[in-house]
Amino acid sequence: MPRWESDAQGRLERAALELFETQGFERTSVAQIAGAAGLKERSFYRYFPDKREVLFAGNELEAHLVAQVEAADPGLTPIEALLTALGTAEEIFRPREFLLRRGRVIAANPALAERDLIKLADIADALAPALERRGVERGKARFIIDVVLAIHRRAMPRWLAEPDTTLAQLMAQAAAELREAVTLPAPRVR
Amino acid sequence: MPRWESDAQGRLERAALELFETQGFERTSVAQIAGAAGLKERSFYRYFPDKREVLFAGNELEAHLVAQVEAADPGLTPIEALLTALGTAEEIFRPREFLLRRGRVIAANPALAERDLIKLADIADALAPALERRGVERGKARFIIDVVLAIHRRAMPRWLAEPDTTLAQLMAQAAAELREAVTLPAPRVR
Repeated sequence: MPRWESDAQGRLERAALELFETQGFERTSVAQIAGAAGLKERSFYRYFPDKREVLFAGNELEAHLVAQVEAADPGLTPIEALLTALGTAEEIFRPREFLLRRGRVIAANPALAERDLIKLADIADALAPALERRGVERGKARFIIDVVLAIHRRAMPRWLAEPDTTLAQLMAQAAAELREAVTLPAPRVR
Repeated sequence: MPRWESDAQGRLERAALELFETQGFERTSVAQIAGAAGLKERSFYRYFPDKREVLFAGNELEAHLVAQVEAADPGLTPIEALLTALGTAEEIFRPREFLLRRGRVIAANPALAERDLIKLADIADALAPALERRGVERGKARFIIDVVLAIHRRAMPRWLAEPDTTLAQLMAQAAAELREAVTLPAPRVR
């Protein structure tokens, strides 16, 4: 997203975030967002299907991750392929300061928090066939994806808080934390 | 739920499932569900806030899991405490045959699939303070919960398909699968 700061989509995203912060998500209209971005209302719909979608950048992340898994070295294990793919996601991320503010707005609005959950589930659904094409059975593929998304969720707040780190480093750190947690004595079966 | 087969809530749940299967979720009204269960419409609202909620049994699962984590042996690691708590969830589960049909109806209806995601996130939110009271830092608590929910999601379809197994056994098996997946060579950091 080299021109995100100035292009129409970026202007809409930043205008929406600003309005959601100052007057609330519910009280902000698509017309207001478009107006604040210096665009006509119908231009908004060229980029986003509705107001809830403006902070989720369409399917950019999903498409990026699927392409990364498809392109991953065949010698990588499924979990390595996914960790590597998610580790590169910062290439298409918005600036940290935007993401921090975005996170707060999403957490404060149930409609956006729900959309966030749905987006994540959509990403998991989209990644599963890419792992299956690497020979991973469907149920196992979904399991590995869920675990790697948990690792990603663990790494993100640290990445946002620590500007000198890479997401890949922090995901490797979270993966190590998981390894430690699960290699403790096996849980008793009752 | 000893009397689930005959009590009012159980009758409502089974009537709703049947109607969702035969005429679809969207085309089924609360009045129809109540009528099919031999109850007045207003009785429905004594058990469920709306039509989307009828297949999710209120906060039963959430309350059960939080109570189980609170009561878990203090000597268990956080991950063991959660696996043990989730392993006991079958005590309050509906019969397998109901759950299989329920799963198909949820998967076929976006509104229900969304509610399912939200319910799971609510359960994760509710479990976090219970782990924090065991001395686990907030971010780590959420991480462990996400991982154990992934383990649960892996175990459930097997438990539904194999009547002679316990959920606790299958979760232990999925935890072992995870241990194997993450103890392979650490992913490269780029």
